[in-house]
Amino acid sequence: MKKYSEMTKEELSLELEQLNDSYKKYQEMNLTLDMSRGKPCKEQLDISMGMMDALNSQVDLRCEDGTDCRNYGLLDGIPEAKVLLGDMMENHPDNIIIYGNSSLNVMYDTVARAMTHGIMGHTPWVKLDKVKFLCPVPGYDRHFAITEYFGIEMIPVPMSPTGPDMDMVEKLVSEDESIKGIWCVPKYSNPQGYSYSDDTVRRFARLQPKAADFRIFWDNAYGIHHLYDDKQDYLVEILAECKKAGNPDMVYKFASTSKITFPGSGIAALATSLNNLEDIKKQLRNQTIGHDKVNQLRHVRFFKDIHGMTEHMKKHADIIRPKFEMVEQILNEELGGLGIGAWTEPNGGYFISFDALEGGAKEIVSMAKKAGVKMTDAAATWPYHNDPHDSNIRIAPTLPPIDDLRTATKLFALCVKIVSAQKILAKN
Amino acid sequence: MKKYSEMTKEELSLELEQLNDSYKKYQEMNLTLDMSRGKPCKEQLDISMGMMDALNSQVDLRCEDGTDCRNYGLLDGIPEAKVLLGDMMENHPDNIIIYGNSSLNVMYDTVARAMTHGIMGHTPWVKLDKVKFLCPVPGYDRHFAITEYFGIEMIPVPMSPTGPDMDMVEKLVSEDESIKGIWCVPKYSNPQGYSYSDDTVRRFARLQPKAADFRIFWDNAYGIHHLYDDKQDYLVEILAECKKAGNPDMVYKFASTSKITFPGSGIAALATSLNNLEDIKKQLRNQTIGHDKVNQLRHVRFFKDIHGMTEHMKKHADIIRPKFEMVEQILNEELGGLGIGAWTEPNGGYFISFDALEGGAKEIVSMAKKAGVKMTDAAATWPYHNDPHDSNIRIAPTLPPIDDLRTATKLFALCVKIVSAQKILAKN
Repeated sequence: MKKYSEMTKEELSLELEQLNDSYKKYQEMNLTLDMSRGKPCKEQLDISMGMMDALNSQVDLRCEDGTDCRNYGLLDGIPEAKVLLGDMMENHPDNIIIYGNSSLNVMYDTVARAMTHGIMGHTPWVKLDKVKFLCPVPGYDRHFAITEYFGIEMIPVPMSPTGPDMDMVEKLVSEDESIKGIWCVPKYSNPQGYSYSDDTVRRFARLQPKAADFRIFWDNAYGIHHLYDDKQDYLVEILAECKKAGNPDMVYKFASTSKITFPGSGIAALATSLNNLEDIKKQLRNQTIGHDKVNQLRHVRFFKDIHGMTEHMKKHADIIRPKFEMVEQILNEELGGLGIGAWTEPNGGYFISFDALEGGAKEIVSMAKKAGVKMTDAAATWPYHNDPHDSNIRIAPTLPPIDDLRTATKLFALCVKIVSAQKILAKN
Repeated sequence: MKKYSEMTKEELSLELEQLNDSYKKYQEMNLTLDMSRGKPCKEQLDISMGMMDALNSQVDLRCEDGTDCRNYGLLDGIPEAKVLLGDMMENHPDNIIIYGNSSLNVMYDTVARAMTHGIMGHTPWVKLDKVKFLCPVPGYDRHFAITEYFGIEMIPVPMSPTGPDMDMVEKLVSEDESIKGIWCVPKYSNPQGYSYSDDTVRRFARLQPKAADFRIFWDNAYGIHHLYDDKQDYLVEILAECKKAGNPDMVYKFASTSKITFPGSGIAALATSLNNLEDIKKQLRNQTIGHDKVNQLRHVRFFKDIHGMTEHMKKHADIIRPKFEMVEQILNEELGGLGIGAWTEPNGGYFISFDALEGGAKEIVSMAKKAGVKMTDAAATWPYHNDPHDSNIRIAPTLPPIDDLRTATKLFALCVKIVSAQKILAKN
C-alpha cells in the first residue's frame, strides 16, 4: 500500500470517495458500540464469581489475628489482606494500608490531605501561591481530573517507550520548589501500555527535588495485568529503589483489585514508607473507623495467596488477549504502511494508544461517534483536555464482545483514513 | 438511703472505708472489661449472617435498572439501595447518594470539601480567617475530632432532653458569619439518648444564619434504633421542614447501616437538597468511579424493603434492651437517692450518659480502669476533650456479655461512690 502522502491528488480523491461510501454503510448499521472506558467485559467478571461463595453464613468471619471482621476495628486492614496485597505490590505488609473499593479515591484523599494539612509537617499546599504536578502525556484522565479539581497546575512531560522524559523531569523538579508531585502509571501505562525501564525507575528514585514534600504518585494499576505468559514487562520496585537512593519517603504507591475481581467492589491499597504511613494515619483516624474488612476477608479467602491471584490473572489474559490482538491486526491490515497513524502493541494493561496525524484526533473520534462507536474523548489523555497536537486517541478493547470490537475497530480505522485523506488533500 | 451530702463526716468516712474494701475485692478479680465504644455484640452481628447468603455465585448481580453491579458505573448508588435507605431516612430516593462503608467518612469528606472548595460557590473555608462549628455537649467524640483536625473552632452548646439550647443556637448563628455548621445527633443522641423535640427541629429549620453557607450536619445515626416497640421517640423530618421554612439547602443528613448489619461492612448515605447534591457530585466525580454496588445489592436483597429492616431492628432491640435495663437498674439500686450522679434512660440508640459530681468524672474513669474496666475517656464527649465540669461519662452497654456488663456496671457505680465520698469529705 502506498502512503497517503505519496499518492497523487487523483488517487487520494478516488480513495476518499470509496472510503466515504463505506462510512455511509456503517452509518446505516445503526451501531451503538463502546470502546471508551477501561472496563472488564462480562466474561472477565464471571471468572470472579467464585468470590461470591468465599464467604457465607456458615463461615467464621474472624481474620488471622482473631478480630471479628464484622465489627469495628483494624483501621489499616486485616493482616492477611496486607500480606496478599503486599505480595501483589512487592512490598512488605508493614508498609501497606488496605483501603476501601477505589485506589482513585485513595489518590484523591492523598492530594486532598496534602492540600489542607501538608505532607510530614510541611506547609499545606492551600497556603502556597502555586502548586504544580508533572503529568506524563498521554496519561490517565482521572489523575488529571484530581489535580485540576484542586487547582494544581499541570505540566505535560512527554512519554517514550521507556517512560517519561527523565531529563525534563530531573531538571524541573530540581529547579522548581512548587512542583510537588508527578502522576505515574509505571507499568502497562494508561494509555500506551509502556512500562518504565529499569533506568527510568532508578532515575526516579534518585531525583533530587527542590521541594522536600515532592512525592511520586506511583499508580501501579496494572502491575500483574499481563496479556502474555511469555512476554511480560518487568518493573523495578520503586519503594526499595527510593530507600537505596536515600529518598525513602518520596513515593506513594497505589494499587487495587478493581481489574482483578470486580471494579467498584474490590479492595485498594497504598504502600509507602513508615514515615509517610504515620503521617497518613493521623488523617485516617479522623476520617473513618475502618474500611470494609469483610470484603478484605472475602478476597483473601478466594485467592488464598499471590499464586492464586497470579493464576486468576491468566484467565483474564486469555479473555482479553484475543481482543488486543484483533485490534492490532485490524489496525495493521487497514492502516499499515499508509503513514497516517501509529499505535502501541502492549504486553499488558487495558489500552492501546493511537496517534493520528496532527490535528486529526478530535475529528476521527467525532466521525466514529456519528456512526455509533463511542471512543474516549480525544484529548482526554492530556491535562485540561488540551492535546496541543490533537493527535492522541485511547483505544479500550476489553469491554465489547469480540464481534462488536471487530466492527468498531474497522469503523475506527475507516475514520482515520477519511480524516487523514481529507487533511492531506486540503494541504495540497 | 441518705444523700451523701447529708451524711455526717463519721457516717461518710465509715461508708468510704467499706467502699474501699469492696474496690480491693474487684481489683483482685483481674477484670478486663470494656464499656468504652458503641460496638454491637456478637449476638447482634449473628442476626445479620443471613446477609452473607443473600448473594452467591449463582445469583444475578444486575440491579433493577439492568446495571451489572460487578462493573464500574452508577456513581451515586443503585436505585433499589436509594429506595431502601430513602425509606430508612424518610427521604425521597432522588435526594440520596449511597456511599461506601462509613457515614463518618462522608461527614469528613463533606467538611474537607467545604474547606478546599466551599459550599455552592461560597468561599472555601481554608480562605477564611476563622471557621466555627457549634457542638451540642455532651456529644460524639468523632464529630469533634473531624472539626478539630481541620482547625475549626468548636463552640459548646448545652443539650437538654429536647435538644440543644435553641435560644443560644439561634442567637449565635444569626450574629456570627464565621459559624458554618453544627453537629447534631438528633435522635437517641450520642451519648444521652435524647431526641430533639418537634419544636427543636422546627426551630432548626427556621434558623436565619448570617452565613449563607451554614449547614446543619444532621447525623441521624440511630434513626430506627429503638429499644422498645411501644416506647419510641419520634423525630420530625428535617429536610422537609427546611424546605417548608424556605431553607431547602441548609441541611446535610447522614445515616448508615453500620449498626443495622455489620459495622465497617455496611453502606452509608447522604440525603440533602438537589442543589447540594449537584454541588457534591462535582467533587464525587473526581473522587471515585463509584462505591461498592455489590454490597449495596447484598443489603437490598437481604432486607428486601424497609419492613424487613424494621423487623430486623427488633431483633437488635431484643438483644440490647436487657443490657440497657440492667445498667439502669444497677445504677438505680446502687446510686439512687445518694445525690452523687444522674443518668439518662433512653428509648433507643447506643449509650447512657452519666453525670457525676462536678470534678469527678476523670477520677471515676481512672479508678474503673485500674480495676480492669475500660470506659470511654472522661471528657471525650466534649470538644478538645475539655469538659469544664469534669462530670460527663459515656456508658456503652452493648458490647460486653451481660454477666460482664453487670460486673462492670457494679464496679463503675462503686467508683462513683468512692470518688463522690472523697470529694464531699474533702470539702467539709
